[in-house]
Amino acid sequence: MKNIGILGSTGSIGKQSLDVIAKHQDKFNVKFLAANSAVDSLIEQCIKYKPEYVCIYDESKYTYLKKNCNIRNILTAHEGLIELCEISNIDMILNAIVGYRGLEPTIKIIESGTDIALSNKESIVQAGHIVIELAKSNNVNIFPIDSEHSALWQCLSGERKSQIKKIILTASGGPFRTLATSEFDNITIEQALNHPNWSMGNKISIDSATMMNRGFEMIEAYWLFNVKPEQIQIVVHPQSIIHSMIEYIDGSIKAQLSTPNMRIPIQYAFSYPDRYELPEFNFDITEFANLEIHDVDMKKFSCIKLAYDAIKKGGSFPVVLNVANDLAVELFLNKKIKFNQIPEIIKDAMDSHNKINMPTLSDILSLTKLTETYINNKFTS
Amino acid sequence: MKNIGILGSTGSIGKQSLDVIAKHQDKFNVKFLAANSAVDSLIEQCIKYKPEYVCIYDESKYTYLKKNCNIRNILTAHEGLIELCEISNIDMILNAIVGYRGLEPTIKIIESGTDIALSNKESIVQAGHIVIELAKSNNVNIFPIDSEHSALWQCLSGERKSQIKKIILTASGGPFRTLATSEFDNITIEQALNHPNWSMGNKISIDSATMMNRGFEMIEAYWLFNVKPEQIQIVVHPQSIIHSMIEYIDGSIKAQLSTPNMRIPIQYAFSYPDRYELPEFNFDITEFANLEIHDVDMKKFSCIKLAYDAIKKGGSFPVVLNVANDLAVELFLNKKIKFNQIPEIIKDAMDSHNKINMPTLSDILSLTKLTETYINNKFTS
Repeated sequence: MKNIGILGSTGSIGKQSLDVIAKHQDKFNVKFLAANSAVDSLIEQCIKYKPEYVCIYDESKYTYLKKNCNIRNILTAHEGLIELCEISNIDMILNAIVGYRGLEPTIKIIESGTDIALSNKESIVQAGHIVIELAKSNNVNIFPIDSEHSALWQCLSGERKSQIKKIILTASGGPFRTLATSEFDNITIEQALNHPNWSMGNKISIDSATMMNRGFEMIEAYWLFNVKPEQIQIVVHPQSIIHSMIEYIDGSIKAQLSTPNMRIPIQYAFSYPDRYELPEFNFDITEFANLEIHDVDMKKFSCIKLAYDAIKKGGSFPVVLNVANDLAVELFLNKKIKFNQIPEIIKDAMDSHNKINMPTLSDILSLTKLTETYINNKFTS
Repeated sequence: MKNIGILGSTGSIGKQSLDVIAKHQDKFNVKFLAANSAVDSLIEQCIKYKPEYVCIYDESKYTYLKKNCNIRNILTAHEGLIELCEISNIDMILNAIVGYRGLEPTIKIIESGTDIALSNKESIVQAGHIVIELAKSNNVNIFPIDSEHSALWQCLSGERKSQIKKIILTASGGPFRTLATSEFDNITIEQALNHPNWSMGNKISIDSATMMNRGFEMIEAYWLFNVKPEQIQIVVHPQSIIHSMIEYIDGSIKAQLSTPNMRIPIQYAFSYPDRYELPEFNFDITEFANLEIHDVDMKKFSCIKLAYDAIKKGGSFPVVLNVANDLAVELFLNKKIKFNQIPEIIKDAMDSHNKINMPTLSDILSLTKLTETYINNKFTS
C-alpha cells in the first residue's frame, strides 16, 4: 500500500489522481488532501477518501471546512501547506499546485526526503538548478506527471541518459495551430480555453494555446534529462497520441503513445516501477490513420522562442520567463490584455532583466515580486 | 572486445553486419565467416576481416577458397558449418542463414551455450517450442535481428513481459499494398523484388510482398514475447519508420522508430545492453509528415491469415507453413508458378497435413522432406 498526499486535490490533475486512486484502493491510500479555496469539492473528497490530514489554503474557508468534514487534522494557510510537505510516514506527494506558487512546496517535500510526483512544472522551470541538486543530495525521486516528461521517462526505462542524442517533444499545436498570425489579436478567452485534445485547467490551457507550455517543458526536459537546449526538438503532432520521443546515439528512437488522458501518466508515477491495469484505455491505434509530425512555427508561437532564449541565457532568465507568463496569462484571463500581448509582456520583462547567475530560493522569491511589480505597474494601472 | 561469428556472411544481413563491425573495430572482432557459395565475396571478406575460421558450404568451392585466402582454418559442407556453431571462446554468433536450413545451426549454437543474434526467423517459426526452451535451459540469450523484433525487444527494455497487453507489429504492406487483388495474377518477379522501403535479399523480399514475412514475425513474437496470437495485431505502416510497438496493461504504448536500415537492429544486438554511435542515421522525424497506420487486409494478403491459422492450430502446423512457403517462393522465383499461387500452395500443404503435437527436431526434418516431396510432386513434374 502506497501512502500518497495530494497538493492541489480539487484541480484538474488532483481530481484525476483521485480517480486513479479510487480504481486501485488495494494499492494506494490518500494520506492528505490540500486545496486552495474550492472547499465544497474538498469536503466531498474528504468524505470519499478519508485522508489523515486536510488543508485549505484560504483561511476564510477553514471554519466551514471544519464544520463539514470529519477529519482529525485540519490545517490552513501557508503554514498548513508546508506542514503537509514535511509529514512523515508517506511514500509520495503529488504537487499539483498551479503556477509559481508550487515551488516552495516542491523544495520542502524534497528536503523532507519524500518522493515527489511533480505536476507543477514551474518548480523545475524556475529553480531547476536548485531542485535537481537537492533531489540528488536527498536521494529523492522526481516522477514527472505531465504527459510529455512521463513519455520521456518511460522511453528512458532500461536506457542510459548519457546515450540520448536528442529529445523530441511533441506538441498538439493547441487550438490555433492553423490560425493565421494576423488573427491572433482577435482570439477570445473561450477560444483559447477550448483545447482540441486535452481537458485541462485554465492556466495550462492558455499555455497550450500560446505553446509556452512546450517552452516550459523544453526547460523541464533540460533539467530532468541532463541535455543541452540544442538537443531538444519541439515538433507539432496534432493528434496528441505520441507524447514524446527520445533518439539515442545509434539512431534508434523510442516513443511513448496513448490516448490523450492524464490518468495514464498519473498512474504510472504512482505505480512505478510497476504498471497496473487501466482497462478503459483500450484503444485501437488504427483509429488514428495518420500521425502527423511537423516543424513548429516559432515565429507564430514566439513563446517557444522566448523559452529557448531564457534557458540559453540561463541563470535567472527562466524565472522571469515563468513569472511574467503567469501574470500575462492572468491578465488575459481577466480580459486586461489581448492574446498576442502575452509574449510581448514576457519579452519586455526579459529585456529589462539583469541576470543573476545562480539564483537562490530567496533571489527567486524577490525576483518574482520584482517582476510582478514591474508588470502590474505597466499593465494594470 | 566482442568476438562474433557470422553464418551467412555474404548475404544481405551478413554484409550489413560486417559494415557495423567495420565501424567499431575497437569493440567487435570477427571470429569466423561462413557462406553458402558466394566464394569471391567470402574471400574479399576474409582479406578485410581476417577471421580465425572460414567455411564455404558448397564443397566444390573449397579448393578455390583455400588457394585465395590466407586463413588458417578453412572448413566446408554441413560438418564445417556445425563445427563453427560449436566453437568456444566466442561471445555471439549471428545466424543469418536464409530459410529453413538455418534451424539446425540455431540449435547447435544454443546447445553450445553461445548467445545468438538471430536473423533466421524460420528457427523460431518452425521450432519455437524447442528453441525457446533450449535457450532457457542453456541460459543463452536470443537477440532478434529483424527490425520488428528488435523494436519489440527495445520497447520491452525496463518493462515486464507479464505486463504486455498487446504487441503491434507494423508492416510496410510491401510493393502491392495498393494493388487490386485482381491484378495479383500478373505480378512479375521484378515487381515483387522491388520493395519500397527496404533493401533485402530475394527470399525475404518475396515474403514481404506476400506479407508472409509478417505472418512469420507474428509467430516469432508469439514465442519470443510469450503472448497469445490474439494479443498480436498486425498493422500496415507504409513509411516503415515505426518498427513495432508494445501496448502495456495501463494503456501506455511504446514504439521504436528509425530510418529503415538494418544496421541499427544489427548493431543493437551486437552492442546490447550498450548503444554505440551510428552518426550516419541522423534523420529528422519531421521529414515524415505523416506516419500512417491502417488495418491489414487479410483477404488480400491471405498469407497472414494462414500464419494465424498455423499458430492457432499449433504443433507442427507452423513447420508446414514455413517449408511450404520456402518452396513456393523458390518456385515463384524460378518462374514455375504465379505470385497468387504462393498462398494456394501453402494452404494446400496445410490442408493435407496431420498435426504432430510437439514435433521433435527429427519430426521437423522428416516433415520438411515430406512437404518438399508433396509440393515438388504437385508443381514441378
